[in-house]
Amino acid sequence: MADDAQAPDAPAPTPRHLAGDDVGIVHARDFTHPGTFAFKSGQAIEGFTLRYETYGVLNATRDNAVLICHALSGDHHCAGWHSESDGKPGWWNNLIGPGKAVDTRRFFVVCANVLGGCQGSTGPSSADPATGRAYGTHFPFVTIRDMVNAQKLLLDHLGVSELHAVMGGSMGGMTAMLFAIEYPQFTRRQIIMASTANESAQAIAFNEVGRQAIMQDPAWNNGDYPRDGGPRVGLAIARMMAHITYLSDAGMDRKFGRRKRETAGGEAYTFDAQFEVESYLRHQGQSFINRFDANSYLYITRAIDQFDPARACGSLEQAFAPIRAESLVVGFTSDWLFPPEQNRAIALALLRAGKRASYAELSTDLGHDSFLLESPDLYTLISGFLERSETYVFDFAI
Amino acid sequence: MADDAQAPDAPAPTPRHLAGDDVGIVHARDFTHPGTFAFKSGQAIEGFTLRYETYGVLNATRDNAVLICHALSGDHHCAGWHSESDGKPGWWNNLIGPGKAVDTRRFFVVCANVLGGCQGSTGPSSADPATGRAYGTHFPFVTIRDMVNAQKLLLDHLGVSELHAVMGGSMGGMTAMLFAIEYPQFTRRQIIMASTANESAQAIAFNEVGRQAIMQDPAWNNGDYPRDGGPRVGLAIARMMAHITYLSDAGMDRKFGRRKRETAGGEAYTFDAQFEVESYLRHQGQSFINRFDANSYLYITRAIDQFDPARACGSLEQAFAPIRAESLVVGFTSDWLFPPEQNRAIALALLRAGKRASYAELSTDLGHDSFLLESPDLYTLISGFLERSETYVFDFAI
Repeated sequence: MADDAQAPDAPAPTPRHLAGDDVGIVHARDFTHPGTFAFKSGQAIEGFTLRYETYGVLNATRDNAVLICHALSGDHHCAGWHSESDGKPGWWNNLIGPGKAVDTRRFFVVCANVLGGCQGSTGPSSADPATGRAYGTHFPFVTIRDMVNAQKLLLDHLGVSELHAVMGGSMGGMTAMLFAIEYPQFTRRQIIMASTANESAQAIAFNEVGRQAIMQDPAWNNGDYPRDGGPRVGLAIARMMAHITYLSDAGMDRKFGRRKRETAGGEAYTFDAQFEVESYLRHQGQSFINRFDANSYLYITRAIDQFDPARACGSLEQAFAPIRAESLVVGFTSDWLFPPEQNRAIALALLRAGKRASYAELSTDLGHDSFLLESPDLYTLISGFLERSETYVFDFAI
Repeated sequence: MADDAQAPDAPAPTPRHLAGDDVGIVHARDFTHPGTFAFKSGQAIEGFTLRYETYGVLNATRDNAVLICHALSGDHHCAGWHSESDGKPGWWNNLIGPGKAVDTRRFFVVCANVLGGCQGSTGPSSADPATGRAYGTHFPFVTIRDMVNAQKLLLDHLGVSELHAVMGGSMGGMTAMLFAIEYPQFTRRQIIMASTANESAQAIAFNEVGRQAIMQDPAWNNGDYPRDGGPRVGLAIARMMAHITYLSDAGMDRKFGRRKRETAGGEAYTFDAQFEVESYLRHQGQSFINRFDANSYLYITRAIDQFDPARACGSLEQAFAPIRAESLVVGFTSDWLFPPEQNRAIALALLRAGKRASYAELSTDLGHDSFLLESPDLYTLISGFLERSETYVFDFAI
């Protein structure tokens, strides 16, 4: 997803950390699981840490938790502000807060950086206790199931008895889906947005080009690089390219069109950034390398590529058989990375498997990043689903 | 366009250089313009060479020439075979030959590698007479108009009095369009396929990521690199990414889906090429760096980005005002790089400008590369247009 949670052309957010309508100043915490953690790959590590945030209060019956699952480049900081001088809030701050669609007066909201990530959770950039150096590519291969299992341990630690809901967009939707499959007794509702039950060849192809940009950068050095170094060129290229896939042709035309940079004035003939879209992308690439680890990018994109619950079970319907959660699936018309058809297919498979499921398709030109959309329609849809006991609306187009 | 002129999943071509249905063994020639050549940018070079091929015979009235314009990564070798042991024919061999849609029994077909290219024509990898070393980024900025003007000098040299037609796909369509604008008395027909009157922000963005992959590769060295070296990593990444934009989601799913490589057998957890689409793309990247110059890639993509005849004239209709050619514009349903709407817009602007123009839209899942399609419908359309004296069919959908 984009660097910030705002719709691409929304005005810069006004700090509202003192206002009553968001969760205010928040602090991340670390959960450390002390025991051996076995990955789906058969590999294991001794202990891991997940960095997470919570908003709201766990109720007495410990069943009002909503687990937020982030996308590829997201993190645990999905609402509120880290300090009064913070430039921007958590990435889903528009959705989560007191009185918002995910109402923190009612729900205990939990969000953790995924296992394999690089924002405080254990991943390839963490120190391997056996060597004291970063794991690099010695880190076990991570799957979405491993991410789910690690987050379940966190929820157990927090005393959550069952999830009111699990929700996420893009990879977060895959995580939610697998939570509902792996922990059916624990998961009452799932919201899957801008996601897929398995990537198309095109989506795998884009991830592969990103990985090649990283791995062919000599500074990658087989994954063994210093924390402040590494394949920054390759990672920036990967990000620039991926960023295009998060937007849409129409959205980019509306936002940038063929406008040229003012500073490019007379420089009609140059390889410098001449069009606005060029300097925007360069900025996206440069800001990403300051916050993301290249090995985590390899591991997490691979986990996304490999996600395919139907494959192991013969069909998506069979993969969904254990699910007890009620489901809301949301597709966005302009999302060409995980297009509406792929989201609708999830809802249809849930229905064919005899589950309660709704599908909504929202018209937008923001592309894949539309799940971050500031949209009253989306808020109504989500709050309605979270607060109703049952939903049967199907193919509800807004 | 793709490395070969075949539809992506067509069977490997059987060498047919001795069969009567193609132009057989052909030889490229060089045209050297001796004088000063002034670029649109205001820069100039002393003399240039275009490498070209011709098929068929120029008639007595010297008005049966068809100029073929190639795309970004194409070249002058668009039909026939260079030797009996050649593995594949020219990139548009399916279209050009005796009795084919572009009938070499009737037409004198000319195709030249563009100015700024790297397949024998003068470009950044050519030696600068002033220094004896490759021009690199000291080569003047090239525009589509410069390419057109250079090809006009070649046609003059060949004794062509007027073009029966100019035609091309993608950048070749831009070249054809500008030929019809710049040399209206000289151009009787134009065929524009899978092209655009100006790129969208998304298309510029993809080109920019490719350029950044090249320019951020340390081996680029500001464009000063040895012929057998240079930014091979960056160029391969640029090509891999661009290649995705030449195909379509549906076409890639049909061709590759989520199939894994047989050799990837038990290697479920690897960053090696695991999915077939990954090894296909890696192959595309590697084969490209052996035949293409990175600086030419920069120059030609920039020329494509800057192409915008409407901008200089106020509107596309005004830009088209000088045109006397009859036009056929062809869009392809699965082309998301230069989608059907952008092709239809060209035809509409021609009609609004009072020109004779037809538009056809072909259903295919081959994406942007569809103009290389082996399709009897396409052949009928093109041969009909080339052989009729007038055409008025509009929005003729196949």
